[in-house]
Amino acid sequence: MKTLTVELGSRSYPIHVGQQLLGNAELLTRHIRSRQVMVVTNDTIAPLYLENVRQQLSDFDTASVILPDGEQYKNLDTLNTIFTALLEQRFNRDCTLVALGGGVVGDITGFAAASYQRGVAFLQIPTTLLAQVDSSVGGKTGVNHPLGKNMIGAFHQPGCVVIDTDTLDTLDDRQLSAGLAEVIKYGLIRDAGFFDWLEANMAALRARDKQVLAYAIEHSCSIKAEIVAADERESGQRALLNLGHTFGHAIETGTGYGNWLHGEAVATGMLMAADLSARHGWLSADMVQRTKHLLQQAGLPISPPAEMDEAQFMKLMAIDKKVVDGELRLVLLKAIGDAIVTGDFRAELLGETLGLAS
Amino acid sequence: MKTLTVELGSRSYPIHVGQQLLGNAELLTRHIRSRQVMVVTNDTIAPLYLENVRQQLSDFDTASVILPDGEQYKNLDTLNTIFTALLEQRFNRDCTLVALGGGVVGDITGFAAASYQRGVAFLQIPTTLLAQVDSSVGGKTGVNHPLGKNMIGAFHQPGCVVIDTDTLDTLDDRQLSAGLAEVIKYGLIRDAGFFDWLEANMAALRARDKQVLAYAIEHSCSIKAEIVAADERESGQRALLNLGHTFGHAIETGTGYGNWLHGEAVATGMLMAADLSARHGWLSADMVQRTKHLLQQAGLPISPPAEMDEAQFMKLMAIDKKVVDGELRLVLLKAIGDAIVTGDFRAELLGETLGLAS
Repeated sequence: MKTLTVELGSRSYPIHVGQQLLGNAELLTRHIRSRQVMVVTNDTIAPLYLENVRQQLSDFDTASVILPDGEQYKNLDTLNTIFTALLEQRFNRDCTLVALGGGVVGDITGFAAASYQRGVAFLQIPTTLLAQVDSSVGGKTGVNHPLGKNMIGAFHQPGCVVIDTDTLDTLDDRQLSAGLAEVIKYGLIRDAGFFDWLEANMAALRARDKQVLAYAIEHSCSIKAEIVAADERESGQRALLNLGHTFGHAIETGTGYGNWLHGEAVATGMLMAADLSARHGWLSADMVQRTKHLLQQAGLPISPPAEMDEAQFMKLMAIDKKVVDGELRLVLLKAIGDAIVTGDFRAELLGETLGLAS
Repeated sequence: MKTLTVELGSRSYPIHVGQQLLGNAELLTRHIRSRQVMVVTNDTIAPLYLENVRQQLSDFDTASVILPDGEQYKNLDTLNTIFTALLEQRFNRDCTLVALGGGVVGDITGFAAASYQRGVAFLQIPTTLLAQVDSSVGGKTGVNHPLGKNMIGAFHQPGCVVIDTDTLDTLDDRQLSAGLAEVIKYGLIRDAGFFDWLEANMAALRARDKQVLAYAIEHSCSIKAEIVAADERESGQRALLNLGHTFGHAIETGTGYGNWLHGEAVATGMLMAADLSARHGWLSADMVQRTKHLLQQAGLPISPPAEMDEAQFMKLMAIDKKVVDGELRLVLLKAIGDAIVTGDFRAELLGETLGLAS
């Protein structure tokens, strides 16, 4: 097992990465300082791992909530089912929530923890590659609104993140690919060497080579932990982690939550960002080609949905969280491994990139 | 105009108290650092003050949301109408929300501000006595759940609080009395001299003597500001501000939100707390009598609802936010002006106090 730390002063917390961690009672309980524990999971994960996790928590008053699986359920109504379960079972302000599942479960459970009785503790046990390398780390929590992805939420850091890489054994190929999109993102935004490594190891990653996957997860988490430690509330460089996300969120909202996986939308969005960067002469055609090729090797989509046109993209992107004083800012690339957040792009070139969609 | 400060380091903010402040554009805009401003109010307040406030904000891109008036609308559904309005009008993360109304508007707008795009700025313009002396100060925001009052929310401090005492001219008598409950609370928990002053001035307060009301508001805000500065997240003494609230929240939830005003429920709850304190020999019968008399003079109810029995009280009180490790703690009185938070009360005496209800 390897342990990384997200350095946030009194709110610092560890990320444990290893095999068979879900069966490690000492590790799972080390960060629980309450009597009452509510495990939140979904109907895909529950039959696989819930009983095992609850067994490790047998020293506590443990209950669970099982949510329906899918991005389309990441909303205020589902959030409310968690509050109802907590209140029906008289959970107090000193309770702990445990998010057992992928990004949707982690985001919604984290927001439930942020807002139940104005804030309770929670732990992350991510079971998808995407959640392990990205969404479980850094304290961004929330739900979607029909008009915009992740528009309702809070910054609320977990007490720890426990990544059991064995859970990837039960992940389907499409979900594995979606997670690889966020792994590739780290190479694109700040680690050209890691991008090279991913090009060399993509086949092994998709074949689920344990060692190669573990390295990809640890390296991704270490980059994420470093960026979050430097800029917890996204006033600066943390925005780089949103490479492809402004385009991607528009795709997820525009096509209806749950139709495109988040990682799939981010993959296409990253290629759109690369394309727009190239149109400004910031990124060479060769680098765009390498990006496109790596995303394809990862089994990811690279073309925006045919049903979305430029106008719909622009409307959905106008409410992006990076908009400042009415100006849309995008994460763009100066090179592989070198991203910037900028409002200094040409509208007609953005139009050309978005025009690819229709 | 008097100005107090809630001292919270970089999140410190002023409370302005005076007449004709809603017409003071410079004051209202001093703390707005964005282009987009959303005024949230309700259908009682909108016809009275919305146009005036929007006029003062004419330098900004201003929009408004009008919520239905009443505690029964302080829920996730109403909260979502604010998010919908913000998204439909493409409000960005650098926008400012303005809460124009009573406690319900302030609490729900504050929580909308805490969670829209993971946190935006907001100002409080409280228009009821209760909101002016209590709920607009201190950053407690949130909504109710059918199973428990204020169970969903966040700590999120406003940028300023603007108290225009002229708004009390349009407040009905019942609402004025409800606000007086929280004013009396400050005397009970830590200022016996203020309690004496209230006994001497209750008639003038109910007759809406401007000077007397202004003093009551300023003094209440100064106590609240001091306690919040010392304990923002309620890990200690801030809980004293909940005198009567554990009983009161149970009454509000048990009778259906909106039937008892919050201040009315708190008044009855404070007398229940005084009664329980007396049963322990901590408070003299004379002091209970004075408390009861002052609440009656303020036009407040002093008997719990006949339809609630001990069992229902106990069930609703079990999820109180002050419960720690399964132990219910209550704010009780050692004297007028001296409150404690304690789990060290006798269950059978609590039963006797609750038995008064049925």
